[in-house]
Amino acid sequence: MIIDIHGHYTTAPRQLAAWRQRQIASAGTPYREPLVITDDEIRETISHGQLRFQKERGTDLTLFSPTAGGMAHHYGDEETSRQWTTTVNDLIHRVCSLFPDNFVGVCQLPQSPGVSPANCIAELQRCVDEYGFVGCNLNPDPSDGYWTGAPLTDRSWYPLYEKMVQLEVPAMIHVSMSCNPNFHGTGAHYLNGDTTAFMQFVLADLFKDLPELKFVIPHGGGAVPYHWGRYRGIAQDAERPPIDELLDNVYFDTCVYHYPGVRHLVEVIGPNNVVFASEMIGAVKGIDARSGHYFDDTKRYVDAIQGLSDADRHKIYEGNALKIYPRLARRLA
Amino acid sequence: MIIDIHGHYTTAPRQLAAWRQRQIASAGTPYREPLVITDDEIRETISHGQLRFQKERGTDLTLFSPTAGGMAHHYGDEETSRQWTTTVNDLIHRVCSLFPDNFVGVCQLPQSPGVSPANCIAELQRCVDEYGFVGCNLNPDPSDGYWTGAPLTDRSWYPLYEKMVQLEVPAMIHVSMSCNPNFHGTGAHYLNGDTTAFMQFVLADLFKDLPELKFVIPHGGGAVPYHWGRYRGIAQDAERPPIDELLDNVYFDTCVYHYPGVRHLVEVIGPNNVVFASEMIGAVKGIDARSGHYFDDTKRYVDAIQGLSDADRHKIYEGNALKIYPRLARRLA
Repeated sequence: MIIDIHGHYTTAPRQLAAWRQRQIASAGTPYREPLVITDDEIRETISHGQLRFQKERGTDLTLFSPTAGGMAHHYGDEETSRQWTTTVNDLIHRVCSLFPDNFVGVCQLPQSPGVSPANCIAELQRCVDEYGFVGCNLNPDPSDGYWTGAPLTDRSWYPLYEKMVQLEVPAMIHVSMSCNPNFHGTGAHYLNGDTTAFMQFVLADLFKDLPELKFVIPHGGGAVPYHWGRYRGIAQDAERPPIDELLDNVYFDTCVYHYPGVRHLVEVIGPNNVVFASEMIGAVKGIDARSGHYFDDTKRYVDAIQGLSDADRHKIYEGNALKIYPRLARRLA
Repeated sequence: MIIDIHGHYTTAPRQLAAWRQRQIASAGTPYREPLVITDDEIRETISHGQLRFQKERGTDLTLFSPTAGGMAHHYGDEETSRQWTTTVNDLIHRVCSLFPDNFVGVCQLPQSPGVSPANCIAELQRCVDEYGFVGCNLNPDPSDGYWTGAPLTDRSWYPLYEKMVQLEVPAMIHVSMSCNPNFHGTGAHYLNGDTTAFMQFVLADLFKDLPELKFVIPHGGGAVPYHWGRYRGIAQDAERPPIDELLDNVYFDTCVYHYPGVRHLVEVIGPNNVVFASEMIGAVKGIDARSGHYFDDTKRYVDAIQGLSDADRHKIYEGNALKIYPRLARRLA
């Protein structure tokens, strides 16, 4: 079985974006317009979108969540974020209910700048208990490009983390859009967020406090595997534990869109901490004019790695996902 | 000849840091205390520091500039930054005058948040004309971690760029310290700055406007070579020119502190755009307890790359540096 742990509903019917625009415009006053999307419209977008690519590329199951760029936690206030979050999580649940063999839900959290992460617990619990979601996406920068909040290792995050541990759901650390003109979203802010989060973990005792907490750092871990020696050295200079110890809690996905990068990831991080993902249809949608293949068809890159044993490839495609997401494992058992 | 294009005077006598502390404390009022450091003190720090490593590692010449983390452009106001910048540039000139065979100067610029980059021209000109410096360090985020200024492709930078072209000096794009608690300096802000700058170049016509402008992106280009396929794809999706075209103007240094990373850099970017550097004694000072070698002894990694022709290795060690820094080439001729 090939599990893609990183997919977003980027193909949602256009009513969703229009609804969101009106919701943002009305921030501060209650917005009551219902979102109207039919099951057939959902089927249409999925059948011609993510499900088609699953079949064409030979993958089986996608962990599916609301669009990362669309989380946009900086808009409006906490209530704006909560309403938007429940709306898109409900939509993901509908996708997963219509295609239960192919999509399993991962939720957005109702984060908002300056608001306690503990306020996300109720929505996380709802999605896990009522919808059977198996993970969540955690935005390390709810200000969306200005990084005005506290690092992920700050105690203010702990109540949410404790709930994650209790519910046995990991988080993918995933920034959203950038409203800082310095940072292109998918070309800078995404990778910077990944790099930043890892370095925060290097410096703190988060996983000593919460040994069961699990995170996935997407996009191949940003700059981290490419600079693994730098991190080893910084940790050593700072008299921190060896960074390998972080690998009990931190995993990197394979959303690296060329073969040498994926090979480097697996070589440096090792097959126990690399987990298959494509983020299709997402950051890079096009077909590479040189190769004739989609940039985000990351299965091709993993398949091409020579010298990877069947057992190790199985970890990347399935085994690690089942370890990181125990609720998924139980569901598939 | 082996040229290390990335060295900072991190070993400066301690009077410098103390002077700077007092200067910052007096920001807003003229600070007139002279910095007193003797030639012997400079000789001592260099002989036991960067010069010793040059000899031990078998490199010949270092392009030498003030400490990057110490630029700290956010402190005080424009005048604070100008005084600090002229002070440290003067100090670099003294190092280079005392060790003319081993160190060639690269200047800091007196940037300040919200102040026009054009105001850096006079100091750049002074360092090039009077001191024979061959390059400059350009901070893409003078706010030091909050990214409140304009992207590097904004027209406000153009007067400085035009002067760089006229003087035939390139810039290394190098952030300084981070005062944002989310970003560790050398473990996050440095790499994020590199990644961010490259993506800004992907999106704009800067090098069409200024075809002679040259930049070095340090630390192996941040996350860029590891995600080269992502950048190729984003550029294609955005109908931008192929990113290979940026390689007429943009170079990546080898400050990547493990062998697989340096090998990946050379494989993906190619020997025409990789330029040798170590940033010793800098971000990662320690000896790797596993290998017994310094993490930042990047020559070992370049030497270890198999299948690199002598001609290509020569480009990385010398040829590309002479191409990027024509004033260095003329001086060595």
